[in-house]
Amino acid sequence: MFLDRILNADSVAIVGASKNETKRGFQAIRTLLDEKYEGVIYPVNPKEKSVLGFKCYPHVADIEGPVDVALVATPAATIPAVLEDCGRKGVQGAVLLAGGFGEVGLDGRMLEEKVVATARQYNIRLIGPNTSGMLNLKKNLNLVGLREAPKGNIALLSQSGNMALTLITEAKIKSRKGFSYYVGVGNEADIKFHEYLEFFGQDPDTRAILMYVEGLREGRKFLQQAYKTTLEKPIILLKSGRSTTGKRSAGSHTGALAGMSEVAKGAFQRAGIIVIENSDELFPAAETLSSCPPIKNNRVAILADGGGHATIVADLLTDLGLVIPELSAKTQARLKQILPAAASVPNPVDVAGGTDADPSIFADCADIILKDPHIGGLLIVGLFGGYGIRFAESLAWMEEEAAHMMGKIVKKRKKPIVVHSLYNSAKPHSLELLRYYSIPVYDSLDVAAKCVAVLAEYGNYLSSYHTKTNFVLNWGAKAKPAGKKIVHNARQEGRRALLENEAKRLLALHGAPVLEDTLARTADEAVSIAQNFEGEVVLKIVSPDILHKSDAGGVQVKLRSAKEIRRAFDEIIANARKFDARADIRGVLVSPMASSGVEVIIGTKIDDQFGPVIMYGLGGIMVEILKHVSFRVLPITSAGAKQMIKETKSFPILNGIRGQAPLDKKALRKLLLLCSDLVESYPEIQEMDLNPVIVYEQGLRIVDARIILKEAAP
Amino acid sequence: MFLDRILNADSVAIVGASKNETKRGFQAIRTLLDEKYEGVIYPVNPKEKSVLGFKCYPHVADIEGPVDVALVATPAATIPAVLEDCGRKGVQGAVLLAGGFGEVGLDGRMLEEKVVATARQYNIRLIGPNTSGMLNLKKNLNLVGLREAPKGNIALLSQSGNMALTLITEAKIKSRKGFSYYVGVGNEADIKFHEYLEFFGQDPDTRAILMYVEGLREGRKFLQQAYKTTLEKPIILLKSGRSTTGKRSAGSHTGALAGMSEVAKGAFQRAGIIVIENSDELFPAAETLSSCPPIKNNRVAILADGGGHATIVADLLTDLGLVIPELSAKTQARLKQILPAAASVPNPVDVAGGTDADPSIFADCADIILKDPHIGGLLIVGLFGGYGIRFAESLAWMEEEAAHMMGKIVKKRKKPIVVHSLYNSAKPHSLELLRYYSIPVYDSLDVAAKCVAVLAEYGNYLSSYHTKTNFVLNWGAKAKPAGKKIVHNARQEGRRALLENEAKRLLALHGAPVLEDTLARTADEAVSIAQNFEGEVVLKIVSPDILHKSDAGGVQVKLRSAKEIRRAFDEIIANARKFDARADIRGVLVSPMASSGVEVIIGTKIDDQFGPVIMYGLGGIMVEILKHVSFRVLPITSAGAKQMIKETKSFPILNGIRGQAPLDKKALRKLLLLCSDLVESYPEIQEMDLNPVIVYEQGLRIVDARIILKEAAP
Repeated sequence: MFLDRILNADSVAIVGASKNETKRGFQAIRTLLDEKYEGVIYPVNPKEKSVLGFKCYPHVADIEGPVDVALVATPAATIPAVLEDCGRKGVQGAVLLAGGFGEVGLDGRMLEEKVVATARQYNIRLIGPNTSGMLNLKKNLNLVGLREAPKGNIALLSQSGNMALTLITEAKIKSRKGFSYYVGVGNEADIKFHEYLEFFGQDPDTRAILMYVEGLREGRKFLQQAYKTTLEKPIILLKSGRSTTGKRSAGSHTGALAGMSEVAKGAFQRAGIIVIENSDELFPAAETLSSCPPIKNNRVAILADGGGHATIVADLLTDLGLVIPELSAKTQARLKQILPAAASVPNPVDVAGGTDADPSIFADCADIILKDPHIGGLLIVGLFGGYGIRFAESLAWMEEEAAHMMGKIVKKRKKPIVVHSLYNSAKPHSLELLRYYSIPVYDSLDVAAKCVAVLAEYGNYLSSYHTKTNFVLNWGAKAKPAGKKIVHNARQEGRRALLENEAKRLLALHGAPVLEDTLARTADEAVSIAQNFEGEVVLKIVSPDILHKSDAGGVQVKLRSAKEIRRAFDEIIANARKFDARADIRGVLVSPMASSGVEVIIGTKIDDQFGPVIMYGLGGIMVEILKHVSFRVLPITSAGAKQMIKETKSFPILNGIRGQAPLDKKALRKLLLLCSDLVESYPEIQEMDLNPVIVYEQGLRIVDARIILKEAAP
Repeated sequence: MFLDRILNADSVAIVGASKNETKRGFQAIRTLLDEKYEGVIYPVNPKEKSVLGFKCYPHVADIEGPVDVALVATPAATIPAVLEDCGRKGVQGAVLLAGGFGEVGLDGRMLEEKVVATARQYNIRLIGPNTSGMLNLKKNLNLVGLREAPKGNIALLSQSGNMALTLITEAKIKSRKGFSYYVGVGNEADIKFHEYLEFFGQDPDTRAILMYVEGLREGRKFLQQAYKTTLEKPIILLKSGRSTTGKRSAGSHTGALAGMSEVAKGAFQRAGIIVIENSDELFPAAETLSSCPPIKNNRVAILADGGGHATIVADLLTDLGLVIPELSAKTQARLKQILPAAASVPNPVDVAGGTDADPSIFADCADIILKDPHIGGLLIVGLFGGYGIRFAESLAWMEEEAAHMMGKIVKKRKKPIVVHSLYNSAKPHSLELLRYYSIPVYDSLDVAAKCVAVLAEYGNYLSSYHTKTNFVLNWGAKAKPAGKKIVHNARQEGRRALLENEAKRLLALHGAPVLEDTLARTADEAVSIAQNFEGEVVLKIVSPDILHKSDAGGVQVKLRSAKEIRRAFDEIIANARKFDARADIRGVLVSPMASSGVEVIIGTKIDDQFGPVIMYGLGGIMVEILKHVSFRVLPITSAGAKQMIKETKSFPILNGIRGQAPLDKKALRKLLLLCSDLVESYPEIQEMDLNPVIVYEQGLRIVDARIILKEAAP
């Protein structure tokens, strides 16, 4: 893969090399030297002959040997020229540190486009611009102003240099784990998140991928790559910008109900990504997932030497969805054999002083507990590691023995142990030993519990994974020519909104059960159409100039007699003229009153990050009360549609609450799939809003539909 | 207050004093010596002549001088005799370390009762038993096996010795703040949480009270005391045991909808207590609240030197309910004067490198921001404190200058600054200076944001505080004699459940709008009663032996004709006989069908910890979907009833959604108050369940009511 040449570069040109110690062009070379980069360094600056003892070249093209990567430390405006120079040399990639591009407005955006175009011309791939740099810790290829980052097997991708610094500092201080690579993705002008993901997914030295993301440029490609990568290794991600994103999201019905972050979070989780919301948990989650076997059955045990800690983590793990089952009778009996009578053994296990004289009994307990086939992992909380500090020094040896034993237990049972210790900050040797055996240790109960939870979340994902890519496509392909005509016709008239009858016809063409209707041009026509329907009818204005029909007095319901229909027709037309004297009135739509049932809403829109998404939720009063809808990135599968229906809080209503008959969930699922297919088949569709759809015990009816097209290409 | 003599004891007897270094009776004396206790120490043990150079007394009664407190380190079984000895001496209080009481079963509970009775007899107050001890840091009165706890002005109350150890360790390592007192409340056999609270509320050296609670013995008294204390100083509390508590809670309708922890959390918050759910935030919240002015207007600013951190805390603060408003034009203009052009000044403020050459500019920015009258507090995030470490040493002096300035700004503006610093763990002098000025510093973004949020929560509480103790009492006192007769009659018959017609009559006596009904003994009577009602009627069995009427085929609805009523009467009686051949059948209740409206449920019950509580929520299908009801500890005020109605998710339905007329919220409020009053007036009531109550545009009707009495005293 192309990124291999760049991220594992054997030779680096430092463009903008400098003798001034405060300049990035000096520091970059100093850092490569100090950190013992294994490749060749070429300073480039036409004004200098040498920097730090290296020969300085006027241009990249003047360098004799091959150059894999250029680190460009010069200002934004110079970069097109620098890239041309690099291009002449055949450089593979460039790391662009300068800011002043897409993030600062129109001029910057134009410069960024020029930079990307120049790079494409010369086949140079770009990291950044506006990046803090990159770091390959295997080769000591340090192109970031940050030293002594700990080496390890976590790849770090961050959209914020400060957050990268935070995570690297945390690793250095609190952990024995470290990083294989760091890339600051910057503006993602060229290389995108999903390309880095693909590379790290394949990299044998990377066991987990840690990401800080504010926004994705290519959400769909990212998800497609994540689906593949998470089957190989865990991805741990914190997405910020929820609050502002929420505000930015359009005021359309779909957008108003949920900030796009809900879409993002759901989409990430369905791709197997571990989404973290609390920044304190971000590195620990990556540390744990990179070093422990996942928990396969969502069932864990707690081992404690005192009440309070166990109670707190029992609450936390329960809230996080884990099960803390009672241990089997056999396991309990075994524990009783080695613990004092006062010990509590059901789970949580409280040793009740049983480790005071010999803390190595912790390891014996751990072995007994993890032998229990119903238990997938163990959380130890309390004072372990501190017996030697608090009570007697000799106990420290026993703690160390326990640590060695626990290391073996984890390996043998292939089940994780996570440890909370009050004495973590005192850095006792026993806790360092646990870390040596890849058993994570935290001084926070919350963090320790969360780490157990992410091991279960990843385990659950891997064990529930089915072929999630089995998409339904091109359903109702035969109907497409007629449908395209409707779209074409609207565009020809310069319209972006389909008329209600057009939208419903398009849906009907593909087999959607729309409520029947007919366009009447005169009151007489309306009366005669109404005769085809049983019971009361509804009249609705049809005009490309009137989008919100009710607001314009364009809807009348529950009409019975010919007289009523005639009067309603005339009033609707008059109201429409009053609303907009120049409105293009196509007529009045006559349809029967839909019989009552449960109202739902289905909508689709194009999300900035993920492309087409679909929304489903209960309609009517309920949608305003529950404010709970379910989102998916399109296309969806039949299983996905089923899940969407099931995961909304309103599901019990559909399922037949309080002895009422269940409604036709199958028809609803079919309609969701049909919408998914429609949006695939008609890339012209920007937004679709079926509201309401009435669901019955058998079947359903789309009562109103709105379809907005994308701006036509000029 | 009696606790003053105990917690500030000038003399301590150590009962069970020992020469064996591994015994608590040795360690206790050693600790008092090492920690330089300012009072007098008296070892007590008939088997020793001296311990650690002190004369050892055979009995407490043998001590010549006065003895304020006895620390009892002897086993559980010896304690009644020890207390008698103490009582003869006139000891004020005893700290009982031993376990083996109420927490271990029936025998222990009986021993505990005996211990309390003995203490009462001799006017001795007890801390514990089963406590880790107590600590007065002003006097170095250290009766807990824990040394070098940092001194300060936070009082710590904990039900877990391990959690106390955790919090004290955290304070020592991460903070400059410390504790005035620690009390391990143990089993609360005698002195209860609320008594400690009263003492700490009055203690001039205590500025905040930090509590770890698993369960309260006297919840109501605790709340009453907390209402008073939180007006003086903040209480910060973590309540664990949610998950198990939830399971324990009975399967009654009220209990099933929400674990009692929801009641507890709501009750605590309404008393002004800061409830913390994340144990990592517990000490920091107390530290911040004990040292910073509260935020009065819920509006804060963020100051950052880079993007990622600011984005994350903006999300966190928004989630926590704070407002991050745009700064005033004047404030923005002032910031622009001292920051580079690239800086972002609306809020969050990003200095964009403007502090690189001189980090004291942070303080200038802080001053400008806190001058803005719309801003109540400031959160600084990023690298402050690390400029001297990361860039040039000289910058450290500027950071220290900034710290001095910020100390002055907080004092002058009476608005808090909370600081997040990535370099906190490196312990730069500037950050120590901030702490010296009581400006809290954290290396966690989550913790720093939470600390800002608790300052706002406490400020909001103080500024919204009204006379919350203005309870409505004895409403409908005239009706009480007739009501008491109903209760008395049921008890005479040996019943705990009132019959439906009794329950409704009791409610009606006090002015509650119950659906009218009359008891029919024969089918003829039923027909003639039905003639008094318009429209259809309902027939319901009345029998003390049939609680669930529908299950026994005891309800028939929508009956029109005399024929229908007769048949229904006979069927109901026959079904009842079939259900229970020996059932005591009182007749059949005839009532009109209630016209349709919105169904709600009101219930009351006696909570273990808080006594009488009331529950309100939407009924019918909605209660099962929303699973959201609102709870209050009784009695409630009119404002409380209004809030209860408003805070349920279903409120929009009552308020008239989608153009429907609003329903009679005033009548609902009145009914809630009436229920509150009823439970006060009839202490015999264990549980009351009004389900359904139908609410109309005008008025409401109680359709069914169930009242269960407490077990009669023998």
